[in-house]
Amino acid sequence: METKVERIQKDIESLAQYSQVRGIGCTRYTYTKEFAQARDYIVSQMKAAGLSVREDAVGTVVGRMEGRDPSAPIIMTGSHFDTVKTGGRFDGAAGVVAALEAARTLHEEGFVPERPIEFVALPEEEGARFGGGLFASRAMCGQLYENELETYKDSQGVSMAQAMREYGLDPAKVHEARREKGEIDMFLELHIEQGPVLENEKVDVGVVEAIVGIKCLTVYVHGRSDHAGTTPLNMRADSMLAAARAIVAGTDKARELADGTVVTFGRVETQPGAFNIVAKETLFDIDCRSKTLESVDQVIAAVRASLEQSQAENQGLSFEMVEKLTAQPVLMKPEVQELLEQQAREAGISTRKMLSGAGHDAMVMGSLCDVAMIFVPSKGGRSHVPEEWTDYEDLRKGAELLCRCLRKLASK
Amino acid sequence: METKVERIQKDIESLAQYSQVRGIGCTRYTYTKEFAQARDYIVSQMKAAGLSVREDAVGTVVGRMEGRDPSAPIIMTGSHFDTVKTGGRFDGAAGVVAALEAARTLHEEGFVPERPIEFVALPEEEGARFGGGLFASRAMCGQLYENELETYKDSQGVSMAQAMREYGLDPAKVHEARREKGEIDMFLELHIEQGPVLENEKVDVGVVEAIVGIKCLTVYVHGRSDHAGTTPLNMRADSMLAAARAIVAGTDKARELADGTVVTFGRVETQPGAFNIVAKETLFDIDCRSKTLESVDQVIAAVRASLEQSQAENQGLSFEMVEKLTAQPVLMKPEVQELLEQQAREAGISTRKMLSGAGHDAMVMGSLCDVAMIFVPSKGGRSHVPEEWTDYEDLRKGAELLCRCLRKLASK
Repeated sequence: METKVERIQKDIESLAQYSQVRGIGCTRYTYTKEFAQARDYIVSQMKAAGLSVREDAVGTVVGRMEGRDPSAPIIMTGSHFDTVKTGGRFDGAAGVVAALEAARTLHEEGFVPERPIEFVALPEEEGARFGGGLFASRAMCGQLYENELETYKDSQGVSMAQAMREYGLDPAKVHEARREKGEIDMFLELHIEQGPVLENEKVDVGVVEAIVGIKCLTVYVHGRSDHAGTTPLNMRADSMLAAARAIVAGTDKARELADGTVVTFGRVETQPGAFNIVAKETLFDIDCRSKTLESVDQVIAAVRASLEQSQAENQGLSFEMVEKLTAQPVLMKPEVQELLEQQAREAGISTRKMLSGAGHDAMVMGSLCDVAMIFVPSKGGRSHVPEEWTDYEDLRKGAELLCRCLRKLASK
Repeated sequence: METKVERIQKDIESLAQYSQVRGIGCTRYTYTKEFAQARDYIVSQMKAAGLSVREDAVGTVVGRMEGRDPSAPIIMTGSHFDTVKTGGRFDGAAGVVAALEAARTLHEEGFVPERPIEFVALPEEEGARFGGGLFASRAMCGQLYENELETYKDSQGVSMAQAMREYGLDPAKVHEARREKGEIDMFLELHIEQGPVLENEKVDVGVVEAIVGIKCLTVYVHGRSDHAGTTPLNMRADSMLAAARAIVAGTDKARELADGTVVTFGRVETQPGAFNIVAKETLFDIDCRSKTLESVDQVIAAVRASLEQSQAENQGLSFEMVEKLTAQPVLMKPEVQELLEQQAREAGISTRKMLSGAGHDAMVMGSLCDVAMIFVPSKGGRSHVPEEWTDYEDLRKGAELLCRCLRKLASK
């Protein structure tokens, strides 16, 4: 008989082979042939675990373990099974496979839950094919509309509606994927960390406290093109220097907060961009994330204060900060965090609390029900690349913790 | 009878009309039809001032006022009469016109110098047509070679040699432009400041102490592309943050030196340049100028120290600094600086010592003879643009100081 870790490895490797690009990581866009093959594999595994399986109106695979009270609010677990272009084999799939392994384990022990458990595999979380992403969870929350499906198109010009029809779904029925408030009690998602913390600290799993709130801004600093040789430093309006000071100030503020707040200045552009001309225009992006928007706002305020100081000290300098995106943080249910920690202790699995710096379906589901997340380690923190990796033994520990919590959550 | 300021204005406006682009500043590339028209104007003005005029092998117009001792080392003054594309009417022309006005004044008063004075107008200082620039002074110093003239080409593919032939010069004779060591005693060039200092401080003319030394480097900072949400700040190798800290450190060091050192970071580029990805690669240019290379090196060392600190604190971060250009500073003759200040005092012209942050023909001439420079104010510090401006009265003061010094220098 196969061990649990062997079963998990077989699931991951089976799903990984359904890839449009062969030999370089995994590319599985929603509603493609390979996506359908992955779905068929998931369905077969769910059936083997005794689940009753259906596909919802947007293609979410739902394997149900009936509860003694079939009308009780559902415990739901799973993740997505689409991938980015030449991504890895774990992003999304890890949570699907952990759910499959939990279902198998519960089935083998003849567990009968008080309330229903639904094991799910969701399409189009990444948005890699149609843009946007998080479509299946939005559909479940009633936030995806039929008329949207014609407007989202892939790089070949195929609309999401057309791709759904070719996949065997009716876009006119997208509203049927919607779940009612109260129908689902809890969505518990296992996902790879996509960051380096667990590996660096040699911790088995992460208990997520919150999916961070995000603000993204673009900053335009306007200065003056002066000659690099003939203009004294104190007579310049150097947009790049002001940007550099603001970047340092924002980062130092995030460090000072010491609450997991991160800030990134990934794009900086200077105009005219010549070595011997003071930069007239500098543009930079701010991406700031934290468990509270208060912390995010403190970082942005530090950037603003630095720019204001540069403006006061350099005649002719001005700036604008344009908000591009704001996302509220989503808190994981504290009782489930505690349950995860307690179950991990019993199983000898080490944990640490952490933030999810990336968005997940659980973030959307937070508008419909309680949510919780388990992170498993990512080698080198790498994700969305072929080298993305989680040791199968690490995934087994995460799946065991998931299973233990499902048992507890569904027993009352 | 015209006043001196009227004569100066007429010269500037006459030269300004010889422009390939009409209505937007002045565009006068070397050896073009408009360049020949400007030359003819300069020749006619020189002849009217009693000078004996010739053209050297690269097209420098030389108007000679013979000295009592024709073999005594020459006092030379002038500047260039080519321009950048859609530049102003003063860059170069100001020094040519000041020389013309000095010649006229000395001629009118019947001045006979002890030693010869040569009033010159030089081609191809800017390098706007053929690249490189400073060609006529290089030719005079024996640093321009016939075989180079085929390799320098304009945007139409016309070589400098071909353009010379069409202009009536023989590129094979370029060596004849060379002056012997000892033949020229002093090159005294009036030029617009191209910076804002004189205007801001309401000073009439600048007495240049030195043409700055320059180092230009390109810095490559290598980091790691991490996810903007999932990677804690202390686990990143953020190339842009390291660059920002280095830019601030270099600028603060230049300020601290307080000796006129300037540093410019005009080009910054990030890769991959996405708002939600830590910048893997950041490239930036350093342009640092000062009256000593020791000061330049201190600024570069501060940039390097900052990058080394980032490297020590962030595993995976590294950098290279590639030197692109080094130019030694050229000191102006101290006795002539004193003479300029003393003559200015007598004439009621206010002065300040200053550095020339840009290169000039005087920089090249420094390898052949003593050099000195006079700066006149530039409105708003603007140059190489159509709005480049110097009030005619300011230029008159500069020309008067030039004339006074020529009289003194040529009288012994």
